[in-house]
Amino acid sequence: MRQEFFNLELNTNGQRLYEFTTQISKWVKDKEFNNGMINISIQHTSASLIIQENADPYVQIDLINFFNKLVPMDNSLYTHLTEGIDDMPAHIKSTLTNNQISLSVKNAGLLLGTWQGLYLFEHRIKKQNRLIVLHYLGD
Amino acid sequence: MRQEFFNLELNTNGQRLYEFTTQISKWVKDKEFNNGMINISIQHTSASLIIQENADPYVQIDLINFFNKLVPMDNSLYTHLTEGIDDMPAHIKSTLTNNQISLSVKNAGLLLGTWQGLYLFEHRIKKQNRLIVLHYLGD
Amino acid sequence: MRQEFFNLELNTNGQRLYEFTTQISKWVKDKEFNNGMINISIQHTSASLIIQENADPYVQIDLINFFNKLVPMDNSLYTHLTEGIDDMPAHIKSTLTNNQISLSVKNAGLLLGTWQGLYLFEHRIKKQNRLIVLHYLGD
Repeated sequence: MRQEFFNLELNTNGQRLYEFTTQISKWVKDKEFNNGMINISIQHTSASLIIQENADPYVQIDLINFFNKLVPMDNSLYTHLTEGIDDMPAHIKSTLTNNQISLSVKNAGLLLGTWQGLYLFEHRIKKQNRLIVLHYLGD
Repeated sequence: MRQEFFNLELNTNGQRLYEFTTQISKWVKDKEFNNGMINISIQHTSASLIIQENADPYVQIDLINFFNKLVPMDNSLYTHLTEGIDDMPAHIKSTLTNNQISLSVKNAGLLLGTWQGLYLFEHRIKKQNRLIVLHYLGD
Repeated sequence: MRQEFFNLELNTNGQRLYEFTTQISKWVKDKEFNNGMINISIQHTSASLIIQENADPYVQIDLINFFNKLVPMDNSLYTHLTEGIDDMPAHIKSTLTNNQISLSVKNAGLLLGTWQGLYLFEHRIKKQNRLIVLHYLGD
């Protein structure tokens, strides 16, 4: 059994989906992983991880709009206000999505569907440095 | 350490929850898995995986209704419109739920609660062929 | 490869977030785990598991309020009514969050961000006994 860890740092600049599928694929290739699981965890609670369609960029716009409408940036709705108008909505959006995803590796390739990409979903409006930890456990 | 993969194909016919707990249990039994993890991932972004109550079928009806109300099929709300009125809502519902779940196997049995079942949650309204990949890693 | 299981029972008393990060950390320390994955699964469908900020308790209040507003306890909205006014909303909230989370262990420590804690999110209003199963797979 083999285990490897990798710290992936992403700089974000506002509410968007930031794809990092290729960074993971590159890691799998560089390390010559064959079969195993990769646990992917974001070390923050105001951004999240999602698997989404990587074909039409309009999907991402609609996602961001939907979540902004569902969880409005409106101070009158919340009591946790000290970190900015976008902070409590960011925590809620993070809870509605995921902080952690496990991906399988089979025959040296990531097990993702044809149209699936892996994204950091940034919920804060100002620049952030985000840390995602990749952990491989396999052969 | 032992690893096994299995492609589970499910044909869906409209917005419903499709249980596949027994297919996984059968796989665990046939392969004589003892202790390990099964990573379950759906290779699509317009259907999802959830663990829900398998006792009262009304739970499933209420779930479907809730998600349809929360994420309406209304073209005026979205910009991604090319694949049908139900497609963008399906992507959003998939983001609000899960594409991936890890289940533990202990003493040759799936670690699920008494009332828990594993479901494919189909968000599209027309017939679909769905691929779920099961990946076992254990002893 | 080493595997261990642990049944963690939590008694809940109403809709709140119950942190159990220290119980997991203690288990990791007691068992002298070094590198591996912990699959954490709650064996119920009316409570869930989330990773959230453990600094400001107001975050938790806002989360609970948000989910109660999004999924109202109103019998006229649901058909599954036999188990109380809070039961169907609890199933929906569980679907909107998670029943299962995988955490990585690196160099004998849980891979969590500085402000991240692991919580049981109780959606029922009366006292409950909840079972969470921890499953370690690593070296």
